[in-house]
Amino acid sequence: MAALSTTYGVGELSAINGIAGSFAEFLPVFHLVGMPASNVQKARRLVHHTLGNGEFDIFYDMAAPVVCARAIVTPENCIAETERLIAAALQERRPVYLGFPSDYANMPVVDTVVPAADHRASPATDPALLNAAVTAIVDALGSSRTACIVPGILVSRAGLADKALAVVNASNLPFTTMFMDKCVLDESHPNYIGMYDGKLMNERVCAFVEGCDCVMGIGAMLTDFNSGSFTARIDRSKSINIMPRAVRVGNASYDNVRMEDVLTELARRIPRKEVPAPAVQGLEAPVGNLDGPVTAGYLYPRWQQMLKPNDIVIAETGTTSMGLGFAHMPKGATFQNQTLWGAIGWATPAAFGAAIAAPHRRTILITGEGSHQLTAQEVSQFHRFGLKPIIFVLNNDGYLVEKLLCKNPESYYNDLAQWNYSKLPEAMGCDGWFTARVTTCAELDQAIATAESCGTGAYIEVIAGRYEASPLSMKLHQSVDTLYSA
Amino acid sequence: MAALSTTYGVGELSAINGIAGSFAEFLPVFHLVGMPASNVQKARRLVHHTLGNGEFDIFYDMAAPVVCARAIVTPENCIAETERLIAAALQERRPVYLGFPSDYANMPVVDTVVPAADHRASPATDPALLNAAVTAIVDALGSSRTACIVPGILVSRAGLADKALAVVNASNLPFTTMFMDKCVLDESHPNYIGMYDGKLMNERVCAFVEGCDCVMGIGAMLTDFNSGSFTARIDRSKSINIMPRAVRVGNASYDNVRMEDVLTELARRIPRKEVPAPAVQGLEAPVGNLDGPVTAGYLYPRWQQMLKPNDIVIAETGTTSMGLGFAHMPKGATFQNQTLWGAIGWATPAAFGAAIAAPHRRTILITGEGSHQLTAQEVSQFHRFGLKPIIFVLNNDGYLVEKLLCKNPESYYNDLAQWNYSKLPEAMGCDGWFTARVTTCAELDQAIATAESCGTGAYIEVIAGRYEASPLSMKLHQSVDTLYSA
Repeated sequence: MAALSTTYGVGELSAINGIAGSFAEFLPVFHLVGMPASNVQKARRLVHHTLGNGEFDIFYDMAAPVVCARAIVTPENCIAETERLIAAALQERRPVYLGFPSDYANMPVVDTVVPAADHRASPATDPALLNAAVTAIVDALGSSRTACIVPGILVSRAGLADKALAVVNASNLPFTTMFMDKCVLDESHPNYIGMYDGKLMNERVCAFVEGCDCVMGIGAMLTDFNSGSFTARIDRSKSINIMPRAVRVGNASYDNVRMEDVLTELARRIPRKEVPAPAVQGLEAPVGNLDGPVTAGYLYPRWQQMLKPNDIVIAETGTTSMGLGFAHMPKGATFQNQTLWGAIGWATPAAFGAAIAAPHRRTILITGEGSHQLTAQEVSQFHRFGLKPIIFVLNNDGYLVEKLLCKNPESYYNDLAQWNYSKLPEAMGCDGWFTARVTTCAELDQAIATAESCGTGAYIEVIAGRYEASPLSMKLHQSVDTLYSA
Repeated sequence: MAALSTTYGVGELSAINGIAGSFAEFLPVFHLVGMPASNVQKARRLVHHTLGNGEFDIFYDMAAPVVCARAIVTPENCIAETERLIAAALQERRPVYLGFPSDYANMPVVDTVVPAADHRASPATDPALLNAAVTAIVDALGSSRTACIVPGILVSRAGLADKALAVVNASNLPFTTMFMDKCVLDESHPNYIGMYDGKLMNERVCAFVEGCDCVMGIGAMLTDFNSGSFTARIDRSKSINIMPRAVRVGNASYDNVRMEDVLTELARRIPRKEVPAPAVQGLEAPVGNLDGPVTAGYLYPRWQQMLKPNDIVIAETGTTSMGLGFAHMPKGATFQNQTLWGAIGWATPAAFGAAIAAPHRRTILITGEGSHQLTAQEVSQFHRFGLKPIIFVLNNDGYLVEKLLCKNPESYYNDLAQWNYSKLPEAMGCDGWFTARVTTCAELDQAIATAESCGTGAYIEVIAGRYEASPLSMKLHQSVDTLYSA
């Protein structure tokens, strides 16, 4: 889990978009906020970092919708509230907020009552309900000729990937993932059939999934970008959905059953099947003229080609992730994208966070230049902490995904200031890094080869045409109507 | 006035710290937010840029405490709500929020009823109350042997500087300003006596102000940084305060009288006085060894020396503004600092905003490197729009003001990634700019001379010692107890 500490008012509001993103994406983040001293608050003093109106609860209240629990910590409530917030973050997989008045931070804890251990556990599953839910699932699958599993992000967020994998292995069912859920289970698994994205992509996967007699989701959500702009069509009566604390089988719901217990029981009881399913297909081999400009047909397959086992790929919102999301990932490799919240600028600092959390894995950041401009300063943090990412900045001269999704692509607001990206690392103190600006496929190949062998951080600006778009982003361009209406 | 347009959720929350700062600092800013289509909201669809819970009013509600009025605009309410929000912004000098569901944005306006013109006027002043308030002020001043005026930020925010100036001229009273209020009235005025900052700075000004029989504030607030960490001591019974819609004379309050009307009437009736007062003193001449390192004793006076009439000086929160705040500003020059909200990172984009709003004035940005790192990408916007600022980045290897205000100055969290600042403009595409990295006083002189004559944007990194602090920041270091407690 992650924690951040910010100043009162100015700091916490600067971070609140990131906190909201963690809420949307089910990430337990502890936000620790230093507050003015308690007597300053009581006296309603006109101090800096306030709105000048003597009110001190404003920012605490603004955070309420984007955290699952919050407290202003005092010497008296310190133990109980800390335990409560840890429990909430663990159960809900959402951020929590702790405010610390500066004087309290230096006081001894008064309360010594430690809450009972079961305070931290989520409500236990009723055995009869669990049995009913699992029986319904087993029956539904048993009476299906064809079936598949759709594991989702809530599985990995809850740390239940092993249990979901056990269900796949016991059942031998094929599984597919949607965009937000990519790599929740390892894509090198023989039962993996590739990405499902409604009618937009992977026609064979779509035909198979939507033709199954039973589709079993485990912690997956049918959001806009998961469902191929709402083109996915899975018959409710023929589907199962296992969520963190509830199960649905067809039209019947079973509440108060924990996903963990359901998966454990299911791995024991699920029937084993042989279901003919499509073989996984990643991106094709790179196609392009080595001396010509970098095309989408060369770039995304080339990135797929360079991926190695256990890589961490951080893909920014926009056309880059839409291209790379259909790569077939090697064993142990993970793919991170902020699919639901979709705040551009997320990827650069997220890559830093991933790299410092797992310094022995290779971190590859792939971002468009528009998103990168929002948070480019975080590049300096990699070097500061001795991390050696490989960073690709795709420079296509503007916000390409916005151009594809709006009525007037050449509108002024889709343009950007022109930077010399490859000179950024030096300006930001990343001494000794390998940097390159590539304009041809051959230069891209050479830069990747150097980045993989140089032993330092690497930062590669890839120049591409203004409308050089990955296939999914072109499909979205054609499906704006289903994406943006209801 | 200013306006910004952001995306729903991710964009508006990224901007909310800036909106809160505009609220604290009394700036009318129109925040226009694009929202998902109305039918998407009604259907509670799981779309990107939401928390995935089908709720669409969350961010609109989060904005409530930091705007003075807000509306979700529909074809039916468009005219009335737009008029109401313009009126609110004009009256309150605070931000307003307008949300636009994307489908509504393309629909014709339905309502054609334009509100009456007086909808936009603030409540009129009662003539009897006005007379009573002004008479009380005139009497209080008439019976005082010594008096002075303290014009504040609310005067300039309300566009009433000319009327406040007329009161100064009619009364011939000396005036002083506090930190947040610097340059509200022109510092070249013969009655200006310099900055008042409680007991911390300018001892002669403090002795004079606090010794006056009557001190008349006009739109000024006794915040922490305005009052010299609450060391200011102005006897309530001997003071007058003219606020936007109320007047206080000693212990008597007069509500529902508008500042504009009070100043107009006061300029007519205020008694003229001759009050001996200190002469204004800016910073001393630069002191230092030309071949030696850049010291605070050289740097701040040297910056004062370079200022010209009508310059716009944007001074970032931290030790730099604390040093420059005591410079004597030339005629027509203005000094901008986010004194109350104090969000570091404010100054770089604020300088861009000032430069584009007044392209024929010279914009000088003075920032510490710690603050600059938060928003450095905005440097590229100057070049993109053909603006030619002079930017100084004071690099003292860490968050100096934090070091001065905390218990363990060498704590890790006061450190920063080390950048090569003078290489940033090139990396960010500012082709042809003059850049320099100066380590001695002579190099500083030379760089200033070049910046003033080169005809391009200029970006100068000034290297200074880790604890090379302006006098006020050293005083704050010594007054932490009064600053942070009540």
